[in-house]
Amino acid sequence: MSEGDFGARIIDLADRLARHSELPDALTCTYLTPAHRAAAKELMQWMQAAGMTVQIDGVANVVGRYAAAAPTEKTLIIGSHYDTVNDAGRYDGRLGVLAGLVIVEHLNRTGRRLPFAIELIAFSEEEGLRFSASYIGSSAVAGCFDRGLLARRDAAGVSLADAISSTGFDPVGIAGLARRREDMLGYLEVHIEQGPVLLQENLPLGIVTAIAGACRFEIAIIGQAGHAGTVPMGLRHDAAAAAAEMVLAVERRCTGIASLVGTVGKLRVPDGATNVIPGRCELSLDVRAADDGIRDAAIADLRNEFAAIAQRRGVAVDLTETQRTPAVMCSARVQALFAAALAGLGLAARSLPSGAGHDAVNFGQLTETGMLFVRCGNGGISHSPRETITAADADLAARALLDVVVNYTGQS
Amino acid sequence: MSEGDFGARIIDLADRLARHSELPDALTCTYLTPAHRAAAKELMQWMQAAGMTVQIDGVANVVGRYAAAAPTEKTLIIGSHYDTVNDAGRYDGRLGVLAGLVIVEHLNRTGRRLPFAIELIAFSEEEGLRFSASYIGSSAVAGCFDRGLLARRDAAGVSLADAISSTGFDPVGIAGLARRREDMLGYLEVHIEQGPVLLQENLPLGIVTAIAGACRFEIAIIGQAGHAGTVPMGLRHDAAAAAAEMVLAVERRCTGIASLVGTVGKLRVPDGATNVIPGRCELSLDVRAADDGIRDAAIADLRNEFAAIAQRRGVAVDLTETQRTPAVMCSARVQALFAAALAGLGLAARSLPSGAGHDAVNFGQLTETGMLFVRCGNGGISHSPRETITAADADLAARALLDVVVNYTGQS
Repeated sequence: MSEGDFGARIIDLADRLARHSELPDALTCTYLTPAHRAAAKELMQWMQAAGMTVQIDGVANVVGRYAAAAPTEKTLIIGSHYDTVNDAGRYDGRLGVLAGLVIVEHLNRTGRRLPFAIELIAFSEEEGLRFSASYIGSSAVAGCFDRGLLARRDAAGVSLADAISSTGFDPVGIAGLARRREDMLGYLEVHIEQGPVLLQENLPLGIVTAIAGACRFEIAIIGQAGHAGTVPMGLRHDAAAAAAEMVLAVERRCTGIASLVGTVGKLRVPDGATNVIPGRCELSLDVRAADDGIRDAAIADLRNEFAAIAQRRGVAVDLTETQRTPAVMCSARVQALFAAALAGLGLAARSLPSGAGHDAVNFGQLTETGMLFVRCGNGGISHSPRETITAADADLAARALLDVVVNYTGQS
Repeated sequence: MSEGDFGARIIDLADRLARHSELPDALTCTYLTPAHRAAAKELMQWMQAAGMTVQIDGVANVVGRYAAAAPTEKTLIIGSHYDTVNDAGRYDGRLGVLAGLVIVEHLNRTGRRLPFAIELIAFSEEEGLRFSASYIGSSAVAGCFDRGLLARRDAAGVSLADAISSTGFDPVGIAGLARRREDMLGYLEVHIEQGPVLLQENLPLGIVTAIAGACRFEIAIIGQAGHAGTVPMGLRHDAAAAAAEMVLAVERRCTGIASLVGTVGKLRVPDGATNVIPGRCELSLDVRAADDGIRDAAIADLRNEFAAIAQRRGVAVDLTETQRTPAVMCSARVQALFAAALAGLGLAARSLPSGAGHDAVNFGQLTETGMLFVRCGNGGISHSPRETITAADADLAARALLDVVVNYTGQS
């Protein structure tokens, strides 16, 4: 197989992996379900055939190690996840695993060993579907697993601890899965963009500069319910009208600043009725930026603006922060390696932040971290069976990854 | 009992009537439930004791006739409803029935007969709770009952036809409940305002000029869902942001014009998630005015504005009209009679439109119709156990009604 066939093989393997699903006509592969275990087993076989020594670790990560030319503990990790959302696409997470697989297959086929080991890790759990806990797989490897999650239960009442124990692994051992800082050379992840930027700019690949941190809020507006016919406009304290102003304030404040985005994804008048002035309205707020300062400035302004809207309208606003994740900067050195690789492929070195979280966020504190984005078709849709990539783009991604890996030296 | 005791008796009777409820600790009296039947029976007894001949008609209206001084078919109807919403107040509807009752009690006690008969009707169904059909009682009497409603089913699957049949009345007979136009002298209704206008102006009573007609719409906005982190603000087609603009457009267009009100009571992003840009948003719109031209001009402007918002944002808007009720003008002559009565009581003759629908709307085409509003406490709240009136206000309302009735001559 020549390098130019990377893309076709990635598409084929993604199709084969998608056969392991909880649903007959759609792809859902949730943490530690039979479909998930079967996918892990097939990944293990592929990695073994590519010359790696493979194990499925205690939290169900599939870890293949392609040994270095000479014995060393120095390790470059290539990873992404193999679990999916409900009714998922085939490339979210899996593209990164398969891009790593095809380049190790190539190294193995050509008998090439590098001065360091490559660990290809298919992380078991990134989406957080089953336990409302993201990054179970990568946080264990990166040494930042939150043991408090072990008590969390899925919809059937099974705890994460019990789910892990049922595979024969004692959750006490999770701490032992963490890699040692001194052994780490770096972490690389290829991922589908899950957005429209590369597609809009007609570019197959993009170099990730940072992974945005998200701040999330649940907001309740308490106004005064009333009869839609009998309360004059000037005497109203309409919670939904106040919410509408806030939605537009978010949009206005987050527009025009690179990497900043603000979203009201949930919006509802509980038990709303056509003929009742809303007495309560609930909404969510999600603000992200590649720079925490930019994000936090926006949030501070929005808090002030919400308070002013509430005061002017005579309603109360209750804002609860539910999540605050810092942005993770990608290594400048790794970005430069990707830029050189893209130049070698004749591609523009488009840099962009990632607005979505990825397994890579867990490695930012541990080692040099880099990510490569691949153009997402269909308007940039992901978390949907309509998610798509082309074989040609997958091919370019694998070639860029191979170039970075073979030229990788680690921080000087 | 002197006239000054009307108020105390109304409050007492309202308390007694509220004991008939489907719930132990709250007032719910839904059409043709045992609680509703018991309330009808007690009303019938009160009317009989007041010298009326009483029957419960085929749709469960309680109809008491206080005969004229000399035999005549000429009839003045005093009415309102005795059904309630869920977890209701004690005065919505019932106040009008009891105001009529106490003045007939007074006429009977003082041996006074008028040149026309008085029919006091406690309408069985106005709120539309059980069959999502309002005005079953008054539309039957006014001759505008919609027979198509007979097939409508309640939450338990019982049709309106079956519910009526189970009381021993053949629904075919509903047409026969209609009053003859030539017999009608007029229709009077006292009602709690259900709004804050009289309370704000420190006035106990108000004369209704017209009952606003409502236009209602269900609106769906179809945008494009996307990942809250990965789609830049400028590439979004956010259905909730479009909805927010529409909510504020409604508020802006309907503010500052007397009697015009516009309400978005329902608002929701179906299956909204914090990290997903809303691909769909649903809302309701209710626009009312005492003048259909004012209302329809507002709706036309809003339709245009919605279309412009949708076009600018690249979303689709689907607007379905679900109701269109014309405004009903109250008789100028009856308004003048009420004004004279209020002057006699030393009260300002404040005129105001009714933004809520009432049984009176069904009589607008049949006869001279007039309504008197009574101040609503607690900020004007209704459809709630917090709905309240004072005995003093109820007293004034009954005295004003009595004055209009004894001076009533009918259209010349």
